[in-house]
Amino acid sequence: MAHYTTDEPVYALATPFSPSALAVLRASGDGVTKLFAPFFTGRLLSAPSSSAVHGFIVDGTGERIDEVMVIRYGKGHGYTSEEAFEIMCHGSLPVIRRISRLLEECGIREALPGEFTYRAFMHGRMDLTEAEAVEEIVSSKTERGASDALFRLTGSIHSEAEKAKDSILDILASLEVQLDYGEDEIPEEWEFPSERVDPICSRLLSIAATYSSSRLWSDGALVVIAGRTNAGKSSLFNVLLKQNRAIVSPVEGTTRDYIEADAVIAGIPVHLFDTAGLRDTEESIEAEGIRRTEDLMEKADLIVYVIDPSSGDVPPDDSRVLAVYSRLDLTGSDGSLAFSSVTGEGMDQVIDAIAKRLTDGLDACTGVPRIDSERQRDALIAASDALKDAEQSMQFGYDVVAMYLQSALSSLADLTGETTGEDVLDRLFSSFCLGK
Amino acid sequence: MAHYTTDEPVYALATPFSPSALAVLRASGDGVTKLFAPFFTGRLLSAPSSSAVHGFIVDGTGERIDEVMVIRYGKGHGYTSEEAFEIMCHGSLPVIRRISRLLEECGIREALPGEFTYRAFMHGRMDLTEAEAVEEIVSSKTERGASDALFRLTGSIHSEAEKAKDSILDILASLEVQLDYGEDEIPEEWEFPSERVDPICSRLLSIAATYSSSRLWSDGALVVIAGRTNAGKSSLFNVLLKQNRAIVSPVEGTTRDYIEADAVIAGIPVHLFDTAGLRDTEESIEAEGIRRTEDLMEKADLIVYVIDPSSGDVPPDDSRVLAVYSRLDLTGSDGSLAFSSVTGEGMDQVIDAIAKRLTDGLDACTGVPRIDSERQRDALIAASDALKDAEQSMQFGYDVVAMYLQSALSSLADLTGETTGEDVLDRLFSSFCLGK
Repeated sequence: MAHYTTDEPVYALATPFSPSALAVLRASGDGVTKLFAPFFTGRLLSAPSSSAVHGFIVDGTGERIDEVMVIRYGKGHGYTSEEAFEIMCHGSLPVIRRISRLLEECGIREALPGEFTYRAFMHGRMDLTEAEAVEEIVSSKTERGASDALFRLTGSIHSEAEKAKDSILDILASLEVQLDYGEDEIPEEWEFPSERVDPICSRLLSIAATYSSSRLWSDGALVVIAGRTNAGKSSLFNVLLKQNRAIVSPVEGTTRDYIEADAVIAGIPVHLFDTAGLRDTEESIEAEGIRRTEDLMEKADLIVYVIDPSSGDVPPDDSRVLAVYSRLDLTGSDGSLAFSSVTGEGMDQVIDAIAKRLTDGLDACTGVPRIDSERQRDALIAASDALKDAEQSMQFGYDVVAMYLQSALSSLADLTGETTGEDVLDRLFSSFCLGK
Repeated sequence: MAHYTTDEPVYALATPFSPSALAVLRASGDGVTKLFAPFFTGRLLSAPSSSAVHGFIVDGTGERIDEVMVIRYGKGHGYTSEEAFEIMCHGSLPVIRRISRLLEECGIREALPGEFTYRAFMHGRMDLTEAEAVEEIVSSKTERGASDALFRLTGSIHSEAEKAKDSILDILASLEVQLDYGEDEIPEEWEFPSERVDPICSRLLSIAATYSSSRLWSDGALVVIAGRTNAGKSSLFNVLLKQNRAIVSPVEGTTRDYIEADAVIAGIPVHLFDTAGLRDTEESIEAEGIRRTEDLMEKADLIVYVIDPSSGDVPPDDSRVLAVYSRLDLTGSDGSLAFSSVTGEGMDQVIDAIAKRLTDGLDACTGVPRIDSERQRDALIAASDALKDAEQSMQFGYDVVAMYLQSALSSLADLTGETTGEDVLDRLFSSFCLGK
């Protein structure tokens, strides 16, 4: 595996590789501007930090590759804190490819995912919770998720950790006084300050508890439409997408290859799958389609299970299943959640029910900064556990209590990345998107 | 239809609406900076033109929306030549949505597609061929297409048009001298300067002739895999894509919904379709699939028609058809283009043949700037036609000749946009991508 470094100049495309008005490539590292300057007609080297310079990027033969703006950052000024520049070019795939190749020819290597943020972290521009927040802002799918992440980026978790650490250090200091005395010369009994420690524990745990709900706010949901053949799945899929994407017919087994599409249901981002109907079949194509359906159901956050009321089918026993009944126009309602894709009746209720299932329980925690990282949750829980262990260790002597308090401090240092090992950093930053 | 204006501040997202490290929103128009400044913590109004300012975007309540860099452009400095700024924010969908909403609340309306370039054109920053080149760079799919478009953006067509216009104006001037005399006092016979006009015509026509080949370089090709049921289409599709996307089975009619994917075949971008097999069928799902196949074949640049040699099928009589024979492992080769998706034999030859069909004749024109716009081609041909009409009108008198020369001038003015009507401009810029 390639390693993150801070001593080589690197570049990456920071916008999606897709045609658009503009694209941005960023480069960072000691001497990076000087490597690139010969291939740019603007006066980059003499430009002040944080200024945008107009010019053409040219290749070795002088042929123009694109007309661009380049923003120069002096050391200490840019995202990474290193000398850096950003190229705003036309959002053209071949132009992006040629500029990328040119930067490599200049001796600037392509950055690993997250390497810019890794460098910002290594240079002390942000702690680890702030670094993680960068990726969480980018990948969040709801405004709530993004604003939670921005709150983390501006140090909300960092300051919670610092506050907890300060209190624990205070307690440790008062305990050290005791340890300095001999067993028999202790001036007075030291009592464990539960009134100080318990609020810290519950604060850390309530931050940790925000994790599971944050994930859906930021990532969105995988929703699979499943059910027996000919239950009306493709009709529901088309209605939810508001387009005629899947072929619909009264014949069983119409959909074979699954079809996927992104949709927003009542403000919640979902990745929606229409699948092959479930039935026992000897037919090999359809059986392959059904195998793929089952794979998708395994991974789903929510399974919308469509049932034709006349079929006698019952929904699978799975907490992720929302059963909906089709053909409301033919069968009428018996009070269960039903819809007709012919008349549209009941469709709003189905959409509301899907939205409700997706958001249930998402707003349980308030008044604490929210986290969106398993790593942070684990560190918070470990710190709280160590504090509780300290409280329950008074009978084993002050040195054992002190050891647990130290362990709580070290979990908090893991949280902010002060003491995190290189392997953890490598794994963490490699999950970032390119260009961050 | 909404109209392009130059008197309102506008904004647009200039990068794709897709999660990534960075996104760029641009805004332009008189007073636009002052509208936005209250919602940005950086010191924007006092920043010099072309400088990047760090800060937070905040909403009306002071809540932070994102940490961003804003590049300010004074009047006359930016892309549109108007006062403008560009926001580089995190490439997060909810952040982009919130910033967009904020800009609208500031009184900055969302720009129409191409409105920034429209304004650059209206303010004389570029002529119409250069404006079109902007969109052509963005949408080009090959390096060749992008570098041709950049050449146009830097005025290559503009200067060809100016050169031709200068020559025609010269000729017109010498002709006017004749027209000033009465019929009987003409000092000497005026001869049509064919030695000057013919080279202009052939130059204009050879530029016009680059159009058809440019289109493929820049847009890529629509390639449809068609053929009878069970001929081996999905196997070929999977091999060309290098992934197992379509379900393959020995049963006729396996593929129903068409499947599409982008691929690069021998360096050429193609949008590839696997389709339902063609056969007479009573079955309604499959019939719908076949109807969709026929629609796709209509639009295709190239139809790869797959034939099972044992079927006795013959390829349709269409110049866009490339016939390929499947099951080479079972039937052996008779010299026709054949492949086996089981052994992979013949696959390279099929790919080469597809590539050759796509590129044939693409490099016929050299030494002239290439165009990628039907509008430009039509204007060039109209100018050349008018010049030829002038040459052949000598018998009708000098005033008729002069009229045709004027008409050639006016076609060239259309080409560069000096005289183009508002309806044409609206149509032209509305085909641009957002943010340009």
